[in-house]
Amino acid sequence: MSEASTPENVDISGRTVAVLGGTGDQGRGLARRFALAGHTVYLGSRSAERAEKAARELVAAEDADIDVRGLDNAGAAGAGDIVVVAVPWEGHKELLEALTEPLRGKIVVDCVNPLGFDKRGPYALPVAEGSAAEQAAQVLPESRVTAAFHHVSAVVLLDPGVETVDLDVLVLGEDRAATDEVRALAERIPGVRGVFGGRLRNAHQVEALTANLIAVNRRYKTHAGIRVTGL
Amino acid sequence: MSEASTPENVDISGRTVAVLGGTGDQGRGLARRFALAGHTVYLGSRSAERAEKAARELVAAEDADIDVRGLDNAGAAGAGDIVVVAVPWEGHKELLEALTEPLRGKIVVDCVNPLGFDKRGPYALPVAEGSAAEQAAQVLPESRVTAAFHHVSAVVLLDPGVETVDLDVLVLGEDRAATDEVRALAERIPGVRGVFGGRLRNAHQVEALTANLIAVNRRYKTHAGIRVTGL
Repeated sequence: MSEASTPENVDISGRTVAVLGGTGDQGRGLARRFALAGHTVYLGSRSAERAEKAARELVAAEDADIDVRGLDNAGAAGAGDIVVVAVPWEGHKELLEALTEPLRGKIVVDCVNPLGFDKRGPYALPVAEGSAAEQAAQVLPESRVTAAFHHVSAVVLLDPGVETVDLDVLVLGEDRAATDEVRALAERIPGVRGVFGGRLRNAHQVEALTANLIAVNRRYKTHAGIRVTGL
Repeated sequence: MSEASTPENVDISGRTVAVLGGTGDQGRGLARRFALAGHTVYLGSRSAERAEKAARELVAAEDADIDVRGLDNAGAAGAGDIVVVAVPWEGHKELLEALTEPLRGKIVVDCVNPLGFDKRGPYALPVAEGSAAEQAAQVLPESRVTAAFHHVSAVVLLDPGVETVDLDVLVLGEDRAATDEVRALAERIPGVRGVFGGRLRNAHQVEALTANLIAVNRRYKTHAGIRVTGL
């Protein structure tokens, strides 16, 4: 049962975090929460200027003294100890192919959901590698690729009125030490539990489940997440 | 918010329920819970004798007076108002192809998870139609096919020590009235919420997520389920 909380002996409080695609809603939301937890956060974007602007806005919006800096994606990938990939699915592979060098040896956290939308709503896109996370693992064989943060609502992450976030983050990966660190990173967001969710070959359905949660959001007018019961 | 509880004006208390594959653990577990809620339940099996034996055992195990009867799968499909498909993935299509006539016009609830297992654990099998539920919908165009009950642990359902079951059942389908009835059926199990989870084209990931929950079970020594937060 102790497995359900932060893994023992995993202290990530001194780690810096980079968020690639850090000017998007999901990226800014995660960056905000990690910065509020005390991490130095490097926002990455194709344009360093846009990243700097987004970083300044995040800092200005908080009463607390938080440390968020803007860089281009390569600079952020090099600067962060843990690198979160929150870019749009279009361009995901090309971006990572350009960053193999700065991401070498690092924990990479893919939180990309390959989804399409039509008049009937959201649906999962087919991915040749199986999932965004497996694509990242193929492109980055020398990085420690994990998958996590798929179901976290950007609106909730950015809402100053939401202090605790009511969901679990499923963390997938092959490397136990890496998934333990990412579980600990998830638990830097108040209310969140980081739960080991399986190997990367089972990442597709976790990414795709976001389509179901969007369907839930539309039906119930909410920002749905999931909790794992039995822990 | 009222959407999160049983849909208003949906009263399924007089409906009979058939469970195809009713002699398996999942089938017996669901049958037991529906019978305890007051439904007449028809267990279906390839062998009517095996179904009768399983039905007698379920009745004998309860102090309460429950009504469970065994039939062959075709007999059960004809007898139930709502028909739950809890057969193994192998043979799923062939079974349903043989039952198009008795299932015509009925609500069919597919709860089959196409999974494989190897030494690295569970994984989702590819399905030509996209998912077991979509296969059922293709084979049964004149039935009202829904998908639900994927994540319910058979061990928990069969455990007389577990009075309330701590999870939500995602109910998927195209037919609002049918998914509302299946949500109400899910809520006949104490503790369970039936939550609309999207269209059938988004059933694959709900079925496949069972592989992740099995990975959670192995890591945390539990019987994991999920709850949807934000409702």
